[in-house]
Amino acid sequence: MKAGVFDSGVGGLLTARLLRSLHPQADLLYYGDTVHLPYGDKSPQQIKGYVRDIGRFLYGVGAQVLVVACNTASAVGLEGLRAEWPHLPIYDAITPALEAFTHHRYAEPVGVIGTYTTIRSGVYGSALRRMGYAVKELATPLLVPLIEEGWVDHPAMEAALETYLSELGEVGTLLLACTHYPVIEGAVRRYYQRRGASVRILSTAALLAQKVARDLPPSGQGTSQFWVSDWSERFVRVASAFWGEAIALEPAPLPSTPAEW
Amino acid sequence: MKAGVFDSGVGGLLTARLLRSLHPQADLLYYGDTVHLPYGDKSPQQIKGYVRDIGRFLYGVGAQVLVVACNTASAVGLEGLRAEWPHLPIYDAITPALEAFTHHRYAEPVGVIGTYTTIRSGVYGSALRRMGYAVKELATPLLVPLIEEGWVDHPAMEAALETYLSELGEVGTLLLACTHYPVIEGAVRRYYQRRGASVRILSTAALLAQKVARDLPPSGQGTSQFWVSDWSERFVRVASAFWGEAIALEPAPLPSTPAEW
Repeated sequence: MKAGVFDSGVGGLLTARLLRSLHPQADLLYYGDTVHLPYGDKSPQQIKGYVRDIGRFLYGVGAQVLVVACNTASAVGLEGLRAEWPHLPIYDAITPALEAFTHHRYAEPVGVIGTYTTIRSGVYGSALRRMGYAVKELATPLLVPLIEEGWVDHPAMEAALETYLSELGEVGTLLLACTHYPVIEGAVRRYYQRRGASVRILSTAALLAQKVARDLPPSGQGTSQFWVSDWSERFVRVASAFWGEAIALEPAPLPSTPAEW
Repeated sequence: MKAGVFDSGVGGLLTARLLRSLHPQADLLYYGDTVHLPYGDKSPQQIKGYVRDIGRFLYGVGAQVLVVACNTASAVGLEGLRAEWPHLPIYDAITPALEAFTHHRYAEPVGVIGTYTTIRSGVYGSALRRMGYAVKELATPLLVPLIEEGWVDHPAMEAALETYLSELGEVGTLLLACTHYPVIEGAVRRYYQRRGASVRILSTAALLAQKVARDLPPSGQGTSQFWVSDWSERFVRVASAFWGEAIALEPAPLPSTPAEW
C-alpha cells in the first residue's frame, strides 16, 4: 500500500522519516509544494487549490493513502480532497493530536505553537477548549526559517524560543503544531529544564506518523520517491538533512503554476 | 506620471516610502505578490511568470513607469517586461547600485548580502568583479523573516548578524542587496562599530529610490494605492509598519494563481 505524503515544502520529510522509522516496509511517495511555501501566510482559498492539485498528482502516481503532513493545509483545506476521493484513507496532521488529548488527560494549561495560519484558524485551540482544556496559543513564525537554515543549536534559535515561550507563559503541556518542529523538541525541552519547569512536550508530526504506521498493513518494499513543485539545490540540501540521508528530488510542477515565460 | 512599484511581498514598501520621502508629489501604485513570497527560494522560470503578470496588472491600472523593488526579480526576470513594453521606463533594483560602484570607488573588499536567489545569480558579484572590485558574497536568508517579525532590535537579529557578518569576514564596503534590509542598516552599523571596523554601508533599495526620484518629473498629486495577490491581516500589519502609517491593501489575484476551489 503506497502512502502519499505531502507538505508545503520539504519539512514533511520529518513526518515521512518518522513514519519510515516506525514502519520500514512502507512505500512512500512524497510531494513538497516548494513553489508555494510557506503555506503559513497564505489565504485558505489559495491553500485549498494547492491541496487539490497535489492530491491529484499523488493519486496519479499510485498513492492509496494520503498523509497531509502540513498543519496549515490540514487546518483549512481538506474538505475538497475528501469529496473527490470519499473512499481513500486521508490522514490529516490534526486529528491524531486531538485523539491523543481525548484518550489521555494532559496537564493544563495546554500551550499550542505553530504558524500564523494554523494558530489563527484556532483548529487546535477550539477543539481542546471543547474538551475542557485551558489553552494558550501563540504563532511562532520564525521557527521554520531558523530550522531550514539549520540553526537548531544556534543563539538565534535560543533567543527566538526565549521570546516566544516566555510570551506563551506557564504551561503544563506544549503541543508543537508544525511539521518542522520535531527537530527543536530538544531545544524546547532545554528551555523548560533551565527554568525547572516540568512540561510534557507533544508533536503533531510524531502523533501523525504513529497513527499512520499503526494503520498501514505490515507489507511493502520500503521504497521512497520524492517530488517538488520547484527544484533548487537548496531544497535538495535541506531535504537531505530532514530525511537523514542524501535524496534526489524530481521536479513536478502543479497545473496552477504558470508556464515558463 | 504614475510609478508602479512592485515586490514579492510588502518589503518593497520600504523602497516606495524612500521614494515618497525624496519625491512627495509622486503618484505611487504598489503591488505586493504576497501569494508567492518569498521569491528568494523560487526558480527563475517561476519568477519570470509572476513578473509578467504583475507588470500587466500595474500597466492596466495606469503605471507609466515600472519600479522593480525586488532584487530577486530584478536578478532573473526582467527581459520579458522589457520586450513587452520597450518604450516604458523600467527601473530594476540592481542597476542603480552598479552605477554607484562605477561612479565612485568604494573600499574593498565589497561584501554583498541578500537572498539565496540573488546571491546565487551572482548578479552583483560578477558585475563588481568585472569593475575590478574584490568581492565577498553571502546568502543571509533569515534576515527577511526576522524583519517581518519586527525583531529588528531583538537578540535573535543580533545573533543572526553575528553569524552572517563574521562568516562574510572583513569588508571595506557592505552592499545590502535586499528590499527589506534598509531597516537593519542601524543594526549592521552597530555590529561593525562594536568591532571598531570602518565599513561603508550601501543599500540597493535606497540607491533605487534615489535614481527614480531624480528621474520622475516634479509633478503629481502625491497619491498612493496598494494591492496584494493574497490579503491577510498580517500583511496589513507588516505593510503599515514598513510604510510608516496605517494603509489599506486591496486584494488583486494574479491570473496564474488558482481559482477558488
